Amino acid sequence: MSKPMLNRLDLGKAGKWEQMVLGVTDVARLPDPTGIVSYASELDDGLELYRVSCPIGVLLVIFEARPEVVVNIAALAIRSGNAAILKGGKESNRTTVELANAISEGLKQASLPPTYIQAIQTRAEVSALLALDQFIDLVIPRGSNSLVRNIQNNTRIPVMGHADGLCHVYLHKDADQDKAIRVAVDSKVDYPSACNAVETLLVHRELLHSVWVEVARALLREGVQLICDSDALSAIPSESVTPPKPDSVVNSTEQSYHIEHLDLKLSVKTVDSLDAAIQHINTHSSHHTDAIVTESGEEGAKFCRGVDSAGTFVNASTRFADGFRYGFGTEVGISTGRIHARGPVGLEGLVIYKYTMLSKANKGHVVGEFGDGKKSYKHTPIKISTVPF
Amino acid sequence: MSKPMLNRLDLGKAGKWEQMVLGVTDVARLPDPTGIVSYASELDDGLELYRVSCPIGVLLVIFEARPEVVVNIAALAIRSGNAAILKGGKESNRTTVELANAISEGLKQASLPPTYIQAIQTRAEVSALLALDQFIDLVIPRGSNSLVRNIQNNTRIPVMGHADGLCHVYLHKDADQDKAIRVAVDSKVDYPSACNAVETLLVHRELLHSVWVEVARALLREGVQLICDSDALSAIPSESVTPPKPDSVVNSTEQSYHIEHLDLKLSVKTVDSLDAAIQHINTHSSHHTDAIVTESGEEGAKFCRGVDSAGTFVNASTRFADGFRYGFGTEVGISTGRIHARGPVGLEGLVIYKYTMLSKANKGHVVGEFGDGKKSYKHTPIKISTVPF
Repeated sequence: MSKPMLNRLDLGKAGKWEQMVLGVTDVARLPDPTGIVSYASELDDGLELYRVSCPIGVLLVIFEARPEVVVNIAALAIRSGNAAILKGGKESNRTTVELANAISEGLKQASLPPTYIQAIQTRAEVSALLALDQFIDLVIPRGSNSLVRNIQNNTRIPVMGHADGLCHVYLHKDADQDKAIRVAVDSKVDYPSACNAVETLLVHRELLHSVWVEVARALLREGVQLICDSDALSAIPSESVTPPKPDSVVNSTEQSYHIEHLDLKLSVKTVDSLDAAIQHINTHSSHHTDAIVTESGEEGAKFCRGVDSAGTFVNASTRFADGFRYGFGTEVGISTGRIHARGPVGLEGLVIYKYTMLSKANKGHVVGEFGDGKKSYKHTPIKISTVPF
Repeated sequence: MSKPMLNRLDLGKAGKWEQMVLGVTDVARLPDPTGIVSYASELDDGLELYRVSCPIGVLLVIFEARPEVVVNIAALAIRSGNAAILKGGKESNRTTVELANAISEGLKQASLPPTYIQAIQTRAEVSALLALDQFIDLVIPRGSNSLVRNIQNNTRIPVMGHADGLCHVYLHKDADQDKAIRVAVDSKVDYPSACNAVETLLVHRELLHSVWVEVARALLREGVQLICDSDALSAIPSESVTPPKPDSVVNSTEQSYHIEHLDLKLSVKTVDSLDAAIQHINTHSSHHTDAIVTESGEEGAKFCRGVDSAGTFVNASTRFADGFRYGFGTEVGISTGRIHARGPVGLEGLVIYKYTMLSKANKGHVVGEFGDGKKSYKHTPIKISTVPF
C-alpha cells in the first residue's frame, strides 16, 4: 500500500480525528439551509411568490478510502434534511462500518430513522442503486476522472462529480520572491496526497534565473522531485541539488502536465505570458483550483476571470480550497462539475428550492385576468428571508 | 396534425409574437446575472474569499415545435454569457431557421460572434453533440419524459430535464366555491396544451355534492371532458350535462391519472383527506406544479411543504408557473429535475459560480500557518454584492 494511501486511512494521524469532530460541531452550529427564501415577489395584489430552499432528497455518495468522509457527509446530509447512502473505498470498509453504526445509534437517540444514513460495501450494490433513478436524486462520486465518467455512463441520476485535482500555481513575471516560495511550497508539501495540492508549477520566463532558482531550492529542500521542461531545468544551479540525488530534478514530457502526482513531485513548465499560463491551465487543469503569484491587481483579476476553474486564487496557496477553510464547517467534496455546486460543497450545495405561491385574494387568482387590456403583473420585491408560514 | 400542435406552431396566434418580443426586452432590462457575489468572507487578515456568479459555458437546448422558444432561449443565453446550440421540433424547422438567422444578424451587429447562437435541424446532429462532453456543459431537453430519459441514457453531459407537466389541483374540504371554480377552470382551459395546465383534479369527498357539482358544471360549460372515478361521476347531476353529449363525462381508470392530456380533458379523483391528496400527487405528479384550494392557512402550508413539486400553490391557478409571470422576463423551460434549477428557469438558472481568493498580505497566504497552536480562521462576513475587481 502506498504511503499516501496509508496516510489517508489513519484517522488518528495529523489531527484528523479532532478535525472531523470539529467539522461536525461546526455543521451543527451552522444555520438550517432549508426554508430560506432566495426570491420573493408580489405578482399582483395579494398574490405572493416565494422561492424556498428544501432538501434534494436521497443522495448516493461514493468516495475514496478516507474514513473521516463518512462522518463529514453524514453531518452535512442530516443538517440539510437529505438521506444518504455512503460507499467508501474498500480499504476503509471496516472503519466505515464502525462509523456508520455510531451514526445510526445517534440517529436513533435523536428519534430519527436509523436507516436515514446507510453505508454500503460493494460495487455491486452501487451498480444496483445507479439504476434506481426514481428513488435516488443525486450521485456524488469523489475520486478519479475514470470513476466519475464510469458512473456518468451508467446512470440517469444526476451526477455531481468530484474528480481529479490537477491544480496549478503560476508565478507571473512580477511575482514577489517570498510569496512565490511560500505559496509554491505550501501548495505542494502541506498535504501532497490531497486533491487541492499543486501538481504543476508554471514559471514566467523572466523569472527563470531569479525567483525560480530560489523557489526550486526551497522545493528541493522539502524533498520535492522537480519534473522540469528544459528551460526550467537548465536554470537550476547544480549546487542547489544537495544532497546530490540523481532523480531530484528530471526532464518532463508533455504527459507530465496531465499527471496528478499526489506525492512530493511537481511538474514545472516555462511560459512566456499570462495568456499562455491561462491557456495552459484551461487545457490541462481539472478545473479544481489554480493560483497566480503576482504583484499586479489587474493581472491577478485577469487570471481569476480567465481561468475556468472552481477556485482562482491570487497570492494564496491552492490548499485553501476546502469547505472547512471556506467557512462551510466541512464539505461533501470539491465539485469539478459546472452545475448546481462548484468547488467545496457544503450545506448550500445539498439543497434545492421550490416555488410556493399564496393567493390572499377573495376570489383566488387566475391567469386569464392578466394580459393585453387586462391586469399587468406587478413583480414588486418582497423583503423577507425565511418563509412566512 | 393535432389542434394543440397547430396552435403551438403559429407565432401569430394569441399574442405570441408580442409576448415573445416583450420577453426579449424584459430580459435585456434584467440585471446581468454574472459577477454577482453570493458569499464573501474574510478568512484571515487580508485574505478574502468571494463566490462570484459566471456563465455555465455551452448549452445544448432541445425543445418541442414552439418557435418562440428559439428567441426566448437565445435572449437568456446571450444575457447570461452562455453560448447555445438550439434544436427545435421538426415541425417548426423552417421558422427556427428564420429566427436563428435573424439572431445571428443581430449578434454580428453587436460585434459578437454570429455562431454564438446556432440552430441545428436533425436528431443525428443531436446524437453527435451528446458525445462531446468536453465541449458542451449542459443539455436542456424540453419535452416528454421519454425524450429526457433517452438523452440521460446517452450522454455524460449534465441534463436539466424539462419533462411532462402532469399538474394537479386539489379541492380541500373547506374550499371556497368561487375560488374552486375559478382556479379549476383557469388551470384547465386558459391554455390546455401548456405543460402547466392541470391534468388531474382531486376532490375531497365532503365536497362531492356541493362545490364539486358547481365546479363540474363550470368545466362542462367550457367544453371540458371529465374523466371521473365512480364517486365523482355519480355526484354530477344529469341535467348538468347540457347539451347532452354522451362522452362529456366518462369513467376513469387508474391509468387516467398518469396521462398528460394537453387538451380539454380532465381526470377527476375523489380523496378522503389532505394526506391522501398529497400522497396521490407525490406518486402521480411530474413534480411540476400542484395547487390546493383551501381557506386554511395551516392546511395550505402543509400542502406546500408536503407536495414534492417545483411549484406548490394555494388558491392560485397552476398556469402561473411560468418564467414571465414569475418575473424572470422569459424562461428556458420549467425544470422538473431536482438539482441546479427547479421550476421556471430564467437567467439565474443559467449561471454557476467560481470562488476567487485574494491575499493582500505582505507575504501571501499559506495553509501551513493555520491549525492547532497556530492561526485560526476568522470567517468574518464581508458585505458586498458585486465582485470588487
